Formats: sequence, C-alpha cells, structure tokens
Amino acid sequence: MSFTITILGSSSATPTSKRNPTGLLVNMNYKYFLVDCGEGTQMQLRKYRFKLQKIKHIFISHLHGDHFFGLIGLISTLHLLGRVEELHIYANEDLKEIIDLQLRVTATELVFPLIFHPTNHLTPEIVYEDDHHLIKSFPLNHRIPTTGFVFSEKDRLRKIRKDFLSREDVPIEELPKIKAGANYTNNDGKVYLNKDITAYPLKSRSFAFCSDTSYFEEAIESFRNVNLLYHEATFMQDMAEVAKEKFHSTAAEAALIATKAGAKELIIGHFSARYNNLEELLAEALEIFPTTRLAEDGDEFKIINDEVITLSSR
Amino acid sequence: MSFTITILGSSSATPTSKRNPTGLLVNMNYKYFLVDCGEGTQMQLRKYRFKLQKIKHIFISHLHGDHFFGLIGLISTLHLLGRVEELHIYANEDLKEIIDLQLRVTATELVFPLIFHPTNHLTPEIVYEDDHHLIKSFPLNHRIPTTGFVFSEKDRLRKIRKDFLSREDVPIEELPKIKAGANYTNNDGKVYLNKDITAYPLKSRSFAFCSDTSYFEEAIESFRNVNLLYHEATFMQDMAEVAKEKFHSTAAEAALIATKAGAKELIIGHFSARYNNLEELLAEALEIFPTTRLAEDGDEFKIINDEVITLSSR
Repeated sequence: MSFTITILGSSSATPTSKRNPTGLLVNMNYKYFLVDCGEGTQMQLRKYRFKLQKIKHIFISHLHGDHFFGLIGLISTLHLLGRVEELHIYANEDLKEIIDLQLRVTATELVFPLIFHPTNHLTPEIVYEDDHHLIKSFPLNHRIPTTGFVFSEKDRLRKIRKDFLSREDVPIEELPKIKAGANYTNNDGKVYLNKDITAYPLKSRSFAFCSDTSYFEEAIESFRNVNLLYHEATFMQDMAEVAKEKFHSTAAEAALIATKAGAKELIIGHFSARYNNLEELLAEALEIFPTTRLAEDGDEFKIINDEVITLSSR
Repeated sequence: MSFTITILGSSSATPTSKRNPTGLLVNMNYKYFLVDCGEGTQMQLRKYRFKLQKIKHIFISHLHGDHFFGLIGLISTLHLLGRVEELHIYANEDLKEIIDLQLRVTATELVFPLIFHPTNHLTPEIVYEDDHHLIKSFPLNHRIPTTGFVFSEKDRLRKIRKDFLSREDVPIEELPKIKAGANYTNNDGKVYLNKDITAYPLKSRSFAFCSDTSYFEEAIESFRNVNLLYHEATFMQDMAEVAKEKFHSTAAEAALIATKAGAKELIIGHFSARYNNLEELLAEALEIFPTTRLAEDGDEFKIINDEVITLSSR
C-alpha cells in the first residue's frame, strides 16, 4: 500500500522559471489528496501524469494567492471534462465566496457537486476520516488565518497467524477480539497469548504539512513522531528577522521544529525566489536535522514503514 | 522598430501538457501589450524571458476562465516585486469585482495603481491611443460578452529628403506642412512637388486578435487589410455544428474570415485539447488561405512591412 507525497510546486510567493507556487499531492493507499493549489497546479498534475479526476479532496492552508490561485482553473477543467463525483474542498470560509463569484461571472453551472468544508484556524480538528485514514487540521502562525494538515493511517489491526487458525477451530465471533489484541482460550481451557497467535500490524504512517508559518512550537503536538514533515523554509537563518516579520520560517527553524517534534524525516520547501542555489538552505537544515531533503518540483517521496525514499521525476 | 506577437498559450478551455490557455504578448515598438491571461501566463512570460514590469496594458477578451484565470497571479507578482507604475486593464466590467474580492480576501493592498477600463462588447471603440499607436476593441460573437482587439501603428509622416534640405533654406514652420504632404514654394516662386522632396513613410502595421467567436463576418470591418490576423480555430470543419453550438470557429472558418477581410497573414490558435496533430488543422486552413500559420506556445511572429516572419523560440 502506497504512501507518497509529490511536490507540484516548491516556490514561495512568486514563481521562478524552475519552481511553481505551492502544491503537493498526497497519495495514501491510492486515494489522492491535493494540498494547496497555486497557479499552474493543474498543469503540474498533468506533467507528472496524475489523473485529475482521481482527486476527491483538496486542502487549502490559507488564502494567499500562491496557495490557491490555481484552484478555480482546476475546478473549471474538472467541470469541462464532465466530472460526476463530488469534490470536497477544505479551506478558510472566504474561499467559497471567491469560487462562487468566479463561477457566476464565467456563467459556469458545475456538472458535479462541489462541497465546501470551512476550516478552523484556532484549534486542531479532524477534517476527514474513513476506515483507514485520518486527516487533521491544526493552527499555524501566519499573517492571515492558516492551518497545517496531518495525514495519517489509522492503527491497523493485528493479523491472526494462519498456522494457528489451521490448528485450532476458532469460533467466528472470536476473530475480531483476537485482532483487537485479546488472548484466546479454547474449549479445553488452553490459553493462547495474543502475541503468540498474531502478527504485529504494519506500522501506520503519517505526513504533516506546515506552510506558511513562523517558527511555532505550539503546532508540534499535532504531528509528534510524524514519519515525514514538510515544513516551509522561505529564508536562511541570516534573514531570521525578515522571516519573523513576514511570519515565515528559516531552514534552521524548520529543522528545529522537526527535531522537537521527533519527526523521522524532513522536507523543506516554499523557498524565496532570491535563492538560486538551494543546497545552502539544505546545508543549514542538515546541521540541525540530519535527515532533511529539499522539495523540488516533481520530487516524489515514498514512506515505507519507518523509511522515506526519494523518487525524483524531474 | 519592432512589431512582434508572441504566443504564450494556444490551447482552448483545458490546457494540455504542451499548450497553455490563451495569452499573447504584442510588442509594438518596445511597448508591451498583453492580450488575455490564462492560468500560467506569468510563468510563460518568464519562460520566454519577458520582463514582467514592462507590461503596462492588459486586454482581456472575455470572462471565460481560460482567458483570465492567470491575471490575479500576475497582478500579485507585480505587487510583490514592488511595481510602481500604473497597470491598465481593459476588460468586461465584471472582472473588477473578481479582482477586488481576491485582493481583499488575500489582504493585499496593491503598491501600484491598478486602473480598470470596462470594455464595450456592443460596438467598436478606441481603447488605447498614443502618438504612434491605436488599439480598438470590437464585438465578437461568443456565449458571453466578448471583444476582439486590433493593434495598429498610426500612419507615419513623410520624411523630408536630406539632399533637398541641404540645397534649400526651408523656414522651420514649413517643415510640418511638407511632412504632412504639402508642396513647397521657395522665395523665387519655384514649386517643389511633395513627392520629389519627401520619401514615402514606412507602412503602418496592424495585428488583430479574434478569440473566442463563432464565424462572424460583422467583425471584419474592424480589421480589414490587417497585416496579421490571429483567429481562433477550436475545431475542424467536420465539427462545424459543434463549433456553432459552442460559439467557436473551425480552421476553415478562420481562413474564410481572413480571406474576406483581406488579411495578409493568418495565425490560427485556441485548439481543442482533442487535437494532438495540429497539422490537420493547418492543412484545412491552408486550402482556403495560403498564408496561414499555427500558433504554438513560444512562437514569435514578426511583422516587417508587408511580410510576417516566424521566429520560433520553442
């Protein structure tokens, strides 16, 4: 089962010739979740060969243009391609007015249901849940209301060992209890400890997205021990004052958040257009957090149990 | 003095991996005029190395998303780059509400003056004029209010021949009259015919933009004898019924308009995403109008007197 994150845009406010504004595609077990949607995101999705119609849920961190100006274009394309399925958008409530106005002025009556879920930028909240996945929003600290998102698999149930099932005739009603961790006592009174008759479940995996934000420790509780953290690193530490003033972070600060959160791996992104050479930002973060990687457009990060591997599609 | 048109996007409603939505840059004597601004136009401008801040006037044909969804991103970037000069936008009045709302929601107070000029989709109108250039809008026939634009140089004054000026001591007040076409009589009563003492001016050049529209002969009067006509060709003639129903044109219809208008050259663009092979559209138009070219992203067309040359930057 896959858990991959693809970078669609790694630039901050203004795009560069190599870096699009913010967008990421999270693929959890073949469900697509789009996070932010800067201008050109639909072209990036095509470029990296994702099927647009597979996206059912879009999460927008905040209403600065580099995080949502591509949304109306994507909605419009889904409409023109004859989408039938619902599309869910999770964002600050003001976005609904912008979408509605643009649909009205362009005389577009959507052929599919667009369902808008206003996000809460004051307190963490579950925004999406199904049998296997949970997505939460949590507050970040930016100039305007902003939320991060954490994507996680739910704890998986234990698997009952096949050799045990073939030896013992276990009543069907006992199976869920064993999967949930109970011991088993057979008709002869023999007790089997749960650990001897089940295999440990696969570890559930998680990914957290923090952009845009100043250095903000209060957020950490929402993604403690996350497998992979994406954290903005708009500037380097020599511009820490500018970063603070603009409610952004430095590469060093991103690394410090990853360290304090006990994250296993870190991706830094949302780079200021002033940096041509991203290796300097990477070096700054690596001094603090040794498993840092750069987000570059087209990069794909795959979480396999405790490990993250990079599959670059550039 | 240059007169070039660069194609920034040649796709219709939905972008493809090779074709952006509509956008063109008209460079008349080093003044930049942007025509339409589909999503990703600012990235295309960067890709083809145009200085964004040199754009002072933006013309939007109509409010379908593929013609304006990139505008707010471009405005936003100009703002973030610290623009000082005025930016003029010529478009249907409803666009102002969309821009204003997005600026308000993103908490953006523009650092430069944005001046909005509502266009008239019912009758031709001069929208821009300076000493050397004239830009007019004219009605097209689409599902929603739509205008085309024609960009022209004003007739240039005749040049007085240097050999004549060195022989005759012409009073300074006579010079403008001669340039405007008058004969000259010297103090001895000798008459010099204007044709003998002036050189013919360079021919003024013109470019017309027609997208989106159904086959619409009423527009022709606005761009008769134009040097270069851009006309949409969303479909081929076997889909003429669909084209009509959707208020679009076929390649053959674009060629017929060019023929009837006495245009010297034709560019077809705004291709449906269904066409991978554009040569078929070109062949259809060429049968009717032998100086047709395809618009492809990055193509540059240069008008030199009566001739158009293609400088591809792809």
